This record gives sequence, C-alpha cells and structure tokens, in this order.
Amino acid sequence: MSSGFCTQCGSAVKEHIPEGDNRLRKVCSSCDFIHYENPKNVVGCLLEWQGKVLLCKRGIEPRHGYWTLPAGFMENGESTIDGAAREAYEEATAECEELRLFAVYNLPRISQVYIMFFGQLKDGFAKANEETLEVGLFNQSEIPWSELAFPVVTETLTRYYEMRDQRDRRVYCADIHSRPGAPVEIIRHPS
Amino acid sequence: MSSGFCTQCGSAVKEHIPEGDNRLRKVCSSCDFIHYENPKNVVGCLLEWQGKVLLCKRGIEPRHGYWTLPAGFMENGESTIDGAAREAYEEATAECEELRLFAVYNLPRISQVYIMFFGQLKDGFAKANEETLEVGLFNQSEIPWSELAFPVVTETLTRYYEMRDQRDRRVYCADIHSRPGAPVEIIRHPS
Repeated sequence: MSSGFCTQCGSAVKEHIPEGDNRLRKVCSSCDFIHYENPKNVVGCLLEWQGKVLLCKRGIEPRHGYWTLPAGFMENGESTIDGAAREAYEEATAECEELRLFAVYNLPRISQVYIMFFGQLKDGFAKANEETLEVGLFNQSEIPWSELAFPVVTETLTRYYEMRDQRDRRVYCADIHSRPGAPVEIIRHPS
Repeated sequence: MSSGFCTQCGSAVKEHIPEGDNRLRKVCSSCDFIHYENPKNVVGCLLEWQGKVLLCKRGIEPRHGYWTLPAGFMENGESTIDGAAREAYEEATAECEELRLFAVYNLPRISQVYIMFFGQLKDGFAKANEETLEVGLFNQSEIPWSELAFPVVTETLTRYYEMRDQRDRRVYCADIHSRPGAPVEIIRHPS
C-alpha cells in the first residue's frame, strides 16, 4: 500500500517511528506532520417491540441482502447513544425509546469497536430507508441465524436472548476475531 | 481552517456534501476521494490496590502537572481492554489484573469517547514512566479533587466510589459537556 500524501501540505508521507513513539506512523517528508490512524466506532442498537427484534436487510455491500441490526460509523460531534439512534432512523426509519448501553465489541483485525445499545422501538414502527432493502420484526424462533450479516450481529442477538432469559442488565464486552472462511473466535471479558 | 490536501493524490480537497450523504466531508477536487473524519477513542483504567487508587501526575500538555487516570488514544489493531492495559504500563509501569468494563463517556465537543476499565493493580507496583511526572496510590480522603486533569477523571472517580459503596457492578454511560471556564454538564444515561 502506498503511504500517500500529507493532509497539511500535499507532500509525500513516509512511514517511520517518530522520536518518543513506538509505532510506525505516516510522517510528512516535508513538514513532519504525523498522521495518526485510530480505530473507528460503529454505533448501533437492538430494538425490541412486543418481544420482537428489529432487523434490516442490507441494501449495500458488504453482505448485501443479509440481515443486520441498525448500526453505522459514529460521526464527529455526536455521542455514541445519539449515533445509535441516528442509525436506527437512517436505516429503518425507526425511533428509539429507553436506550441503554448493551455491549462493547472489539474487532481488532479491522480496527473497529462496536458500541451497541438496547431499547424499545417506538410504536413498533419501522420502514426501509436508505441502505436497507427491507425491515422486519422477528420472534426468537424466526431469527434468520444463517443469513445474519456479521459475527457481531450474531453475538449481540445471542447475548440479548441470554440477558432476556436471565432478566439480567449486565453490559457485555468481548473481542471478536473473524475473517471470511475461518471460524469465528470470541473472547468474552468479565463484566 | 484550511481544508487541506488529499491523502491519495496530494491535490487540494474541498468541503461539500457528497451525493447520498447528509454531511460536509473533505472531498478531493481531483480524484473525488472522500476523507471521513470520525471520533477517537481514549482507553484507560482505574486500578485499585488495597482500597487505594492509582493516579498519575501528567508530564505533558494539556493539563501538565494535574492528576489523571492512566488513559490514552486507542491504537489500530488492538482491543479497548488491551489498549487500557497498554496505557497503564506506558504511563505508570503498572500491570493490570481482573480488568472489566467500567464506563463509556461521550465527549461530543471534542469528538472523543472514553472507554474506561476497572481492575486491580498487580503487586501494588507503579512508577512514573514516559509522559508522567509522578504516580501515587490514594485513599478516598486523599484524592486531589481540585487538581484532577479533566472532568472525565472526576466523573470516573466519583462513580467508582459510588459503585464501591453500593457493591454495584453496573457499567456507566454518560455525555460530558465541558469547555475551559464553563460549568461542566453531565448527562447520565440509564444502565
């Protein structure tokens, strides 16, 4: 992969370890600006209505046509909980009530952190919006387990049913290691 | 602020709303590459040893000379919990045991999310490391409340003593709105 160009002056950047640091960074060969790269947060929610769960069928790649929970990249200037509510609206025209933190999932291979909330779907209303082909409310026996988009969706739904059965309010935290074609490894942390 | 240059081709970028989007982004005027900017995570921990809490006196700006919990920017390729342990070592030569998720704090004004863990300080050992002038283990009555570096540190310590008194294991979630010279506003979310 090319190292690219400096956002400050447009000169070429080179990868090296800056003085006092211990990691390779993209450093400008002209103005010495250091371009730090950090993980991105994906914020989303599991919304419940009369014991059913809201899922969205993805209208974009990756995993076009597979089912997911409303979630997407957190934006600058918003909080995690506001971002989760925004994604529910953008993907499923859904409004959220009683949102609370549900889980923090680390996906270190792709440098993402999923911050998931749990709440109620206002009025049970949802409809496909941009990026979504179809929305649905599913009972536990109806969840399309083999057609879920990502391991983090499977893990969130699995822990949701566990929490519901145990009337538990713990917040989950786990590392999810997956790559296409390989078994998923999940390291669950105590909470 | 100047919009800057494209990381892909070095041409000037301009701010506009890309088709299908609803926010201003930095878009390359030559190759059309979109430069998304997202919040950064700060990962850290509150470490306890024999009822005392580990604090570090900051050796760098901002808030040089003020006391803080070990915390810093999460790196690509690591999980939040591993990042928190790394920061404890980098700032206080401290090893962590029994880490568990403690709180998610949103700081939307500066587009940061603090993800804080709670655990035990191994062997009660800590010593100042890079970026730190001094480390200390403090009883509750000794906490230097007026010399804490950031509102998020004050909030984490306050909730820790609340949790300890109530023998609670809930995970906290709040938005912290602060700017120098103005009162701190904290919106605590249910958990």
